[in-house]
Amino acid sequence: MTDIEMEGAVCPVPLPHNKQIVMGHGSGGKMSADLVSKIFMPVFNNPYINSGDDGAVFDVPAGRMAISTDSHVVSPLFFPGGDIGHLSVCGTVNDVAVMGAKPLYMTAGFVIEEGFSFDVLQTIVNSMQKAADEAGVSIISGDTKIVQRGHADGIYINTTGIGTLFPGININGREAKPGDMVILSGNLGDHGIAVLGARGELGFESDIQSDSAPLNHMIESIIKISDEIHVMRDPTRGGLATTLNEIANQSQVCITINEDSIPVQPSVASVCEMLGYDPLYIANEGKIVVIVSERDSQKVLAEMKKSKYGKNSVVIGLVSESPKNRVLMKTNFGSTRVVDVLTGELLPRIC
Amino acid sequence: MTDIEMEGAVCPVPLPHNKQIVMGHGSGGKMSADLVSKIFMPVFNNPYINSGDDGAVFDVPAGRMAISTDSHVVSPLFFPGGDIGHLSVCGTVNDVAVMGAKPLYMTAGFVIEEGFSFDVLQTIVNSMQKAADEAGVSIISGDTKIVQRGHADGIYINTTGIGTLFPGININGREAKPGDMVILSGNLGDHGIAVLGARGELGFESDIQSDSAPLNHMIESIIKISDEIHVMRDPTRGGLATTLNEIANQSQVCITINEDSIPVQPSVASVCEMLGYDPLYIANEGKIVVIVSERDSQKVLAEMKKSKYGKNSVVIGLVSESPKNRVLMKTNFGSTRVVDVLTGELLPRIC
Repeated sequence: MTDIEMEGAVCPVPLPHNKQIVMGHGSGGKMSADLVSKIFMPVFNNPYINSGDDGAVFDVPAGRMAISTDSHVVSPLFFPGGDIGHLSVCGTVNDVAVMGAKPLYMTAGFVIEEGFSFDVLQTIVNSMQKAADEAGVSIISGDTKIVQRGHADGIYINTTGIGTLFPGININGREAKPGDMVILSGNLGDHGIAVLGARGELGFESDIQSDSAPLNHMIESIIKISDEIHVMRDPTRGGLATTLNEIANQSQVCITINEDSIPVQPSVASVCEMLGYDPLYIANEGKIVVIVSERDSQKVLAEMKKSKYGKNSVVIGLVSESPKNRVLMKTNFGSTRVVDVLTGELLPRIC
Repeated sequence: MTDIEMEGAVCPVPLPHNKQIVMGHGSGGKMSADLVSKIFMPVFNNPYINSGDDGAVFDVPAGRMAISTDSHVVSPLFFPGGDIGHLSVCGTVNDVAVMGAKPLYMTAGFVIEEGFSFDVLQTIVNSMQKAADEAGVSIISGDTKIVQRGHADGIYINTTGIGTLFPGININGREAKPGDMVILSGNLGDHGIAVLGARGELGFESDIQSDSAPLNHMIESIIKISDEIHVMRDPTRGGLATTLNEIANQSQVCITINEDSIPVQPSVASVCEMLGYDPLYIANEGKIVVIVSERDSQKVLAEMKKSKYGKNSVVIGLVSESPKNRVLMKTNFGSTRVVDVLTGELLPRIC
């Protein structure tokens, strides 16, 4: 278990003599209750989770709701700019928000390895609540399972988020239309390279920070000013290239992007060049792609630039009718090449 | 990985030469898409999951909803009467149902160990859908993460379920009232002892089957005939003793049960006696405790007995005012003893 904490490049907690998770914390009995009441309840503190029932009950207005689930297995647990707790909340908040919904509630399911440090768990839980506070969501129900040493890698966290769709919304991967513009909310590759750096796999020091962030407020602000947003998606695993291919396939359109418009910060570009990675395939955890009518594109772009998470937003391309189900890139050299989905495995356990 | 399949006492799938999960199946790229389209989509097949978005959108009427999440880490993955797939659906269906809700939708988050067999995964996914079909819920969104060998134990499954509360319902752990009767829906201990048997830890053969079952239809039938059901809960980890203590604590009442009324099938009783286990603390996965007014208790009991999962339902005790926060048992010898919550760890990774 000590390697968990060792792996953590910026783990803020001292290692030795910490109280540790033991199998009894998964018994469902007194020790489970202690764990919940000491670590989770004081932090997630809200009327739903405080009820002490096995689930939560909440009121909803009539309408449409969105739900999304993600399990988080990122390694290491702590990395510059984030940690598994922050990531587990932001990832799910963003997945709900990109469907055109206001994220409201979240559940959290923990699988913890025997021997895991109480203090590190507390740090992760605090980080979850910090992200939840920023996003304005409540973590209303949870579950904890403990597995023996050697049957996990410290901690895995599943979060499931639900939210209510904004009225009249029909935003999904099938709605991209010829003539639409493609906006990206900022620099590519920060998260993937930050995690790689925290693993010590770069072979040199780097100050690249993960972009892990809750994007729901920025998303809400653009939904409120435009009813011509057709698709939103966060380019996480598989990167921008994979996300755009998914959309091109779902909408049966062609998406063409311009290489020289795609923002990559110089330090990330350098690392990618040295290691042979393409930033188009690196995971992001605080970026969105917005596909919007040409008419509303400048208005939406301007609104995104107002958000601290969208300052570097830029139009990177456009949607056309054919060739269907294809992503193309106009390169800096003036040629056009096909951008395929990620094949094989680039960076495992990035989220 | 081979020990996963070896562990499975009744795993119906041959081991050698199976196609295996590799890290690339967690890439978010082409291999992830292949896994989803080949294994998950054809089985979970419904309009929500078929959309191909990162989440699902569904319509809700105005009212109250219930949500519950559970991660499942049961070992072995297959045991007499069930498997991790069946369990992962039933466990969450039951947690939503006992809040007085009709379970409607479910998400599924998979953490899979590199090297896991495609065929075994398919068997587990089929089993999930079989349980979902019986319960009448749709698995509408999912997520798959792959971790390296030695960082899981085959597969862990998180499910999160949501449902709409039946109108006028106020069923939770704080509602037990002095004078109420306590009904148990059947024999205790089957699940825990079945899993123990599948691990080969009994030291002898046993034909004890897990009681893993979706109880939502039985629960709906009693909600429809009585508006005096105050508490429902499924006595899973920690067993009946822990569940009753939670309720006694939440409601600040005393619950007194009669030892001679508690149903335990003879084979389970024998195993418990030999190994020194108390059936009151063994996990169940297909049982509920119902706390209902004395006036409606016989009506509710008769209705429960109509269900195939409630044939052995019986009144096991009653609620009184004091001593508050206490569970007592009238023993077969005529004495009364305190029944405490489970302390320490009895049977790890039972669900």
